[in-house]
Amino acid sequence: MKLLRYGPVGLEKPGVMDDDANIRDLSRVVSDISGAMLGQDNLAQLQGVDLEALPIVEGNPRIGACVGQVGKFVCIGLNYADHAAESGLELPEEPVVFFKATSAIMGPNDAVEIPRGSVKTDWEVELGIVIGKETKYVSEEDALDHVAGYCVVNDLSERDFQLHRSGQWVKGKSADTFGPIGPWLVTRDEVGDPQALPMYLEVNGHRYQDGSTSTMHFGVATIVSHLSQFMSLQPGDVISTGTPPGVGMGQNPQTYLKPGDKIELGIQGLGVQRQEVVQG
Amino acid sequence: MKLLRYGPVGLEKPGVMDDDANIRDLSRVVSDISGAMLGQDNLAQLQGVDLEALPIVEGNPRIGACVGQVGKFVCIGLNYADHAAESGLELPEEPVVFFKATSAIMGPNDAVEIPRGSVKTDWEVELGIVIGKETKYVSEEDALDHVAGYCVVNDLSERDFQLHRSGQWVKGKSADTFGPIGPWLVTRDEVGDPQALPMYLEVNGHRYQDGSTSTMHFGVATIVSHLSQFMSLQPGDVISTGTPPGVGMGQNPQTYLKPGDKIELGIQGLGVQRQEVVQG
Repeated sequence: MKLLRYGPVGLEKPGVMDDDANIRDLSRVVSDISGAMLGQDNLAQLQGVDLEALPIVEGNPRIGACVGQVGKFVCIGLNYADHAAESGLELPEEPVVFFKATSAIMGPNDAVEIPRGSVKTDWEVELGIVIGKETKYVSEEDALDHVAGYCVVNDLSERDFQLHRSGQWVKGKSADTFGPIGPWLVTRDEVGDPQALPMYLEVNGHRYQDGSTSTMHFGVATIVSHLSQFMSLQPGDVISTGTPPGVGMGQNPQTYLKPGDKIELGIQGLGVQRQEVVQG
Repeated sequence: MKLLRYGPVGLEKPGVMDDDANIRDLSRVVSDISGAMLGQDNLAQLQGVDLEALPIVEGNPRIGACVGQVGKFVCIGLNYADHAAESGLELPEEPVVFFKATSAIMGPNDAVEIPRGSVKTDWEVELGIVIGKETKYVSEEDALDHVAGYCVVNDLSERDFQLHRSGQWVKGKSADTFGPIGPWLVTRDEVGDPQALPMYLEVNGHRYQDGSTSTMHFGVATIVSHLSQFMSLQPGDVISTGTPPGVGMGQNPQTYLKPGDKIELGIQGLGVQRQEVVQG
């Protein structure tokens, strides 16, 4: 299933996309697409719902973040060998973990704001994992059972804030609008092998990132298991798993986002995001 | 006012402590002590409530975290000159910012779990700031207007996870139980100067930390203003402002928590926390 949230900011309703790309209104079945819903085995129940019986949403509503009320927004750094190389950094022995602010989360097609004082706002297409169960000290073998599904994430990053403002990456990762997620939370059963998904990112029609989750250094099961040794994960938590080569910092010369730029990114089966860049 | 939350985990009710140290039930006035409440200027309204008219809570209920549904748990590192020295690190030019997982938050007197595989679980008494208003690009002059109040935080830390597990401190800061906050959210009007509060932490009756917020390198107003340049802050967000000298890592020999240890910590006017240490 392709679950989504549609409507104005803060007033999103739950929906599902049918095979004809119609949005069907799910609000009579569940109150929201969020941890509270995902944690109650509602996904299994939703699989039994007759989509054709749900009302079609008319018009062309805004699409919100595909998960509401995210508790934690966890990210993995330097998880593609070529991206580590372009960043001038060693591939780590264990997953590098950092958080983005949950207040950075927005809809997949909302405008990206360049923060005040920024000169190095950059892009990163990433596979997002959405947690479906309470997860603590889980083994790699059991880890995928804790995954509700996947989504596209643009892990927007201010490189100067990230790397040159007194350590710890959080300062460059947390500005409002730096975390578009969606358009859909695609349930695990529909995604197949999460380590075989082509992904891309373009700015103004130029393809900067053209990769695949097949070259991830630490895969989804390893990441979920590893994280659960250091913190518990709750339904609705989102984990962004790192980016393939082609970020702006890795270009020669380095290339960063500016107002008016148009970003498009996507992962096979998980949909496409389109953002216009504005000055914050 | 000394606002608090009491009752079993996940079922906490809002309360207020009166001048005779009775807990008064606030649940007829507000539904919870959380961002949704703090953001609606309910604090001003609460100031007008006659505490004596509210029912006294009998018995000795568990005290929960003093803020519910925390959106972000932001921390400042190396913010006391002597603590930076004992950690062998330079005092930073700007506040060092990292996040703790919100799932680490617990009541002030709940048991602290040593994570599996940990050999260096450490303590840090800290002044916590609770945000009361949406905050973005705020000046230092206006910053304190965005503070609802203050609380005690124990920023528990696993030093090996923090420093030797592939970079970024988050791995050593985010285990369940690593974020006791409370017992009270003390409103700003009652605290006076936040830069003149004596604070201490003892383990098994030995006083390891004995400091004051007067030696903070970056003060509350600077921290709130600085953070708001990099992310927006919402009502109910908690910012922990760094720890004075005397952490376990700074002892000679280094000293870490073990099951059965008893921790007591407090800040003048903000109350006392008491935790027993258990194996997780």
